[in-house]
Amino acid sequence: MSENASVVFFMKQTEERQELLKHSFANTSFYFPDKKGVPSDQILKTADVLVTFGDDITESLVSKASSLKWIHVMSAGIEGLPLRLLHDRGVLVTNSRGIHAEPMSEHAIWAMLDYVKHATRYRMLQQNKQWDKSIKPKELTGMTAVFLGTGAIASKTAERANMFGMRTIGVNTDGRPQKHFEQTFSIEEWDKALRKADVLINILPYTEQTHGILNKEAFRQLKGHTVFINLGRGKSVVETDLLDALKLKQIDHAYLDVFAEEPLPLDSPLWDDKAVTITPHVSAATSHYMKRALDIFMKNLKAFINNEDLKNIVCFEKGY
Amino acid sequence: MSENASVVFFMKQTEERQELLKHSFANTSFYFPDKKGVPSDQILKTADVLVTFGDDITESLVSKASSLKWIHVMSAGIEGLPLRLLHDRGVLVTNSRGIHAEPMSEHAIWAMLDYVKHATRYRMLQQNKQWDKSIKPKELTGMTAVFLGTGAIASKTAERANMFGMRTIGVNTDGRPQKHFEQTFSIEEWDKALRKADVLINILPYTEQTHGILNKEAFRQLKGHTVFINLGRGKSVVETDLLDALKLKQIDHAYLDVFAEEPLPLDSPLWDDKAVTITPHVSAATSHYMKRALDIFMKNLKAFINNEDLKNIVCFEKGY
Repeated sequence: MSENASVVFFMKQTEERQELLKHSFANTSFYFPDKKGVPSDQILKTADVLVTFGDDITESLVSKASSLKWIHVMSAGIEGLPLRLLHDRGVLVTNSRGIHAEPMSEHAIWAMLDYVKHATRYRMLQQNKQWDKSIKPKELTGMTAVFLGTGAIASKTAERANMFGMRTIGVNTDGRPQKHFEQTFSIEEWDKALRKADVLINILPYTEQTHGILNKEAFRQLKGHTVFINLGRGKSVVETDLLDALKLKQIDHAYLDVFAEEPLPLDSPLWDDKAVTITPHVSAATSHYMKRALDIFMKNLKAFINNEDLKNIVCFEKGY
Repeated sequence: MSENASVVFFMKQTEERQELLKHSFANTSFYFPDKKGVPSDQILKTADVLVTFGDDITESLVSKASSLKWIHVMSAGIEGLPLRLLHDRGVLVTNSRGIHAEPMSEHAIWAMLDYVKHATRYRMLQQNKQWDKSIKPKELTGMTAVFLGTGAIASKTAERANMFGMRTIGVNTDGRPQKHFEQTFSIEEWDKALRKADVLINILPYTEQTHGILNKEAFRQLKGHTVFINLGRGKSVVETDLLDALKLKQIDHAYLDVFAEEPLPLDSPLWDDKAVTITPHVSAATSHYMKRALDIFMKNLKAFINNEDLKNIVCFEKGY
């Protein structure tokens, strides 16, 4: 690739970041919109590179971008992209995986501590001005956390969970060992992991294989009174089965950041369930986000210009 | 000390633990009450060793225990003990410091995460069935935690805070360096620490020196919007000054586990303050507590019988 690449952003960038990019890549032309959105057909037509959150790339848009060589996704999830078409067109896709490790592992550890420290209960007691020491907080020490997925987020969380004296088990496609996990199982043998889970953390990407994977058959494998934390994708969970598992105390409490439908519909029974804590798909959000995402993009842009290998390339086969 | 020591417990022990003690110390006589409380004068008279939570040792009780050589306190705080009399009588006092490190450091990290992840806000949104992504969670990475006290609890918390990418500063009597703290200051120079505090964690014991130490002069030194976590003693804080500091946003949120008066009186304005999270002096509680406390006592009892040095001896001068 020559240095004269045309890079089109689909989201706003601060003046400061725009200057940084222009200064770092003098012969590259950049388009920055005033607000998040799809640019005009004319701009698309000249684009070599698109930088997007991954939620606005349609087949029609790809067809219009006739010079397109590379799409960089500023988030991790790429299930909204027309992967087959991009594959056929030979368009490279990279994402920002890895930068979610810090905030999402904080979110996961927060959820575990929130549970063992009875935070919801104490907040309710405070509202009622009740001083009640009768129910003692529990401790993470000695508990077993089972991670569905052993990538950067799971690995960072497992490392921190170890620091709290927890045991850590990972589940991935082939059961390969990964750092910070005492044990790993393949997804075919995940029942051996599920039955040990004091805490079950889903961080799997959404693919055909993970659609509805957390259903009543899965929940039945749990040891009981498990804490369930979903930071992966909502559609990996059969929500009606989850509600049953909560009633049956197979799951004691669910911390959900993602849902089959987002925003979570007003009539969802999840809102009112006392055993459910809802956050609005924010576990990856952090004030450090754009800086870190741009760091990855800039390293990749440098490699792109110099015809070197890019990082975080999405595998069309696997879909992540 | 001969092996024929007489050990009097002031709190219940399970059958299992009673058997363990009798089995481990065959020539020692043990008294276990049916429930927490002060035993009869007759039992006190023969006691060489008292095992107590430290809240029921009066001067009159000490006078009755004429053979008393050693008091082991199953908690850390010993401000309720008649230290001068015990000192004059040559009675040794040991406590259970160290065992609070696990649960209390979990509590401290929970409080920090609860704050940066906007947990209170999201719980309120859930109650109103509101999906609002507009306020992004923050991250511990890069924040500075200042610890008043650098003992076992602070040290364990600082170690974990480091794992979350936080900077850690300790304040102790003489500013001596301690593991897991990037910097330490003496209490005389604590203003240098206070002004850097994104998070301020009080874990100081209660002594004459720490009475009311966290007052408006102290809060005025803060950088502003500080998170305050009190796990030490309530009387180290001037609560009216704390309420003012919250109004002035010198402190953004206070996580309080201890109070000047406990239970916290119904008419305390702390209950209703939205910037205050109250837990009822439970940060040290854990289902592992009695096991760990008994481990320390048993090691000390072995040393006592063998005329060896005991661990966790309380210094009468320092008062902790």
